[in-house]
Amino acid sequence: MNASEVHSDFLDIQENIIAELKKLDPLVIENSDEWQRKEGGGGKTCAFEQGSFLEKGGINFSDVTGENLPPTALNNRPELTGASFRAMGISIVFHPNNPHVPTSHANVRFFNAKTQNEKNIWWFGGGFDLTPYYPILEDVIFWHQQAKELCDSFKEGLYSKFKKNCDEYFYLSHRDETRGVGGIFFDDLILKDFSTSLDFCKKVMQTFTKSYFNIFMKRKELSFGENEKKFQNYRRGRYVEFNLVHDRGTHFGLQSGGRTESILMSMPPTANWTYDWVPQDDSKEEELYKNFLQPRNWLEIKE
Amino acid sequence: MNASEVHSDFLDIQENIIAELKKLDPLVIENSDEWQRKEGGGGKTCAFEQGSFLEKGGINFSDVTGENLPPTALNNRPELTGASFRAMGISIVFHPNNPHVPTSHANVRFFNAKTQNEKNIWWFGGGFDLTPYYPILEDVIFWHQQAKELCDSFKEGLYSKFKKNCDEYFYLSHRDETRGVGGIFFDDLILKDFSTSLDFCKKVMQTFTKSYFNIFMKRKELSFGENEKKFQNYRRGRYVEFNLVHDRGTHFGLQSGGRTESILMSMPPTANWTYDWVPQDDSKEEELYKNFLQPRNWLEIKE
Repeated sequence: MNASEVHSDFLDIQENIIAELKKLDPLVIENSDEWQRKEGGGGKTCAFEQGSFLEKGGINFSDVTGENLPPTALNNRPELTGASFRAMGISIVFHPNNPHVPTSHANVRFFNAKTQNEKNIWWFGGGFDLTPYYPILEDVIFWHQQAKELCDSFKEGLYSKFKKNCDEYFYLSHRDETRGVGGIFFDDLILKDFSTSLDFCKKVMQTFTKSYFNIFMKRKELSFGENEKKFQNYRRGRYVEFNLVHDRGTHFGLQSGGRTESILMSMPPTANWTYDWVPQDDSKEEELYKNFLQPRNWLEIKE
Repeated sequence: MNASEVHSDFLDIQENIIAELKKLDPLVIENSDEWQRKEGGGGKTCAFEQGSFLEKGGINFSDVTGENLPPTALNNRPELTGASFRAMGISIVFHPNNPHVPTSHANVRFFNAKTQNEKNIWWFGGGFDLTPYYPILEDVIFWHQQAKELCDSFKEGLYSKFKKNCDEYFYLSHRDETRGVGGIFFDDLILKDFSTSLDFCKKVMQTFTKSYFNIFMKRKELSFGENEKKFQNYRRGRYVEFNLVHDRGTHFGLQSGGRTESILMSMPPTANWTYDWVPQDDSKEEELYKNFLQPRNWLEIKE
């Protein structure tokens, strides 16, 4: 296990995705901050806003250490209670302007914990998921096909396991809705060895970038009006609800005394709430609720 | 103790405040729903929107029963673990359109729990707090004066205790900011006897209504522009953060399988997030941060 290799690989990932984004949306405004954490470690936050296509987003790196692994990271492993830790991660959220382009999130993370009897434990986690407003079935299938190809190239059965994790994790129990159409999600990951595991995480980020920017480019010029924008902002409210009520990453950040502005860069630029809003019968908006916000086996659907 | 008296008094409170609101803002749109909860009980949600002055708000009543008091209501009283319960409450949030009018919240609640050895326990809780965007010191002092008068008429020392509770409760630790300028907040309340305690809760709601609508009427015609509206929507993001990350009432509702649309009626109509936004030096917006978002003894300030 080599934590400094993770550190430098994660920084490379960050740099590459920033470069890609700027190619696709050259006018996007970038605000970069390098920050230190009093308790140990720090990070580099790259926030984006007011692009031609990206309304708001972030591509963040952090590498923090602490004396007490927060409860959200324990994963039902009581031997880790009170462990000192180092946690590294890349976290990405894109909130595009056009409601026909989905919001998306990706993350890879590495944990290294030292238990009180000096056991040295490491694992990876991560994943990516897609949150469309006006979903296009072809894009959803493409998204999952890419995820499956990546997983299959490492180990059979990985995709269906990680796809199921994702559906279960990005689920708003108080709404009985998934956050979007899912993707893959994994935690406690140790593949064959350390470098295979790290390699998998790197490929996760490559696959995410390729798949998401493909959909982004294809749909970014679709025309939309005030109603579509309104619906996007309403649904962005669900994104806020998920991240603040359910998301373990957000809670880990806030509990471990992380940098609030970096953690909450995942918030959308705008979110609306309307009491008891329901979509009209047979509308495009109803289509989202009916066919996309419950777990489905996307790769078994005949288009 | 007479739970049905609480039930009918709370319903009267709801009706009165609705009538007051409609007098002040006759064009406001009302959406009322009576709902039943599968596990027991129900409520009446009155949501408001698109008034001349009130952009969004709610005046909700609920009376729910359950077999297992949720952890958020245990208040460090382990003997209540596993108790069956009845919980009643009135919960009010007003999000005015004009950024010169503060947002406000008020709540009274009654709990009756039966422990596993058949002990019958009851208590009240509640309070009100004020969240200005462009605070006017005179209003803040008035708000606290009214709260103090109410408390003093019941018991000396109540105001300073409940004011401190409020500052501590409505505190965003991840921002190191109070939600607003506070007010009063109490839990586990048992005054002299049951009817004194119920009477206190009724007066809490009367004081809230009188004080808030006074400020509301005084400031609702102040002129404002796009910048003030933008700042209001930015600060409404903090309101969302508090309610979804910290608020015990929200968590109690979601944990006890409450009706999501009623619980989340507290959400603002719109909220904005901008990465790492800070107010300009010597601006009105900076004034809020500098002088109003940390606990202060408002009644000792010379205007």
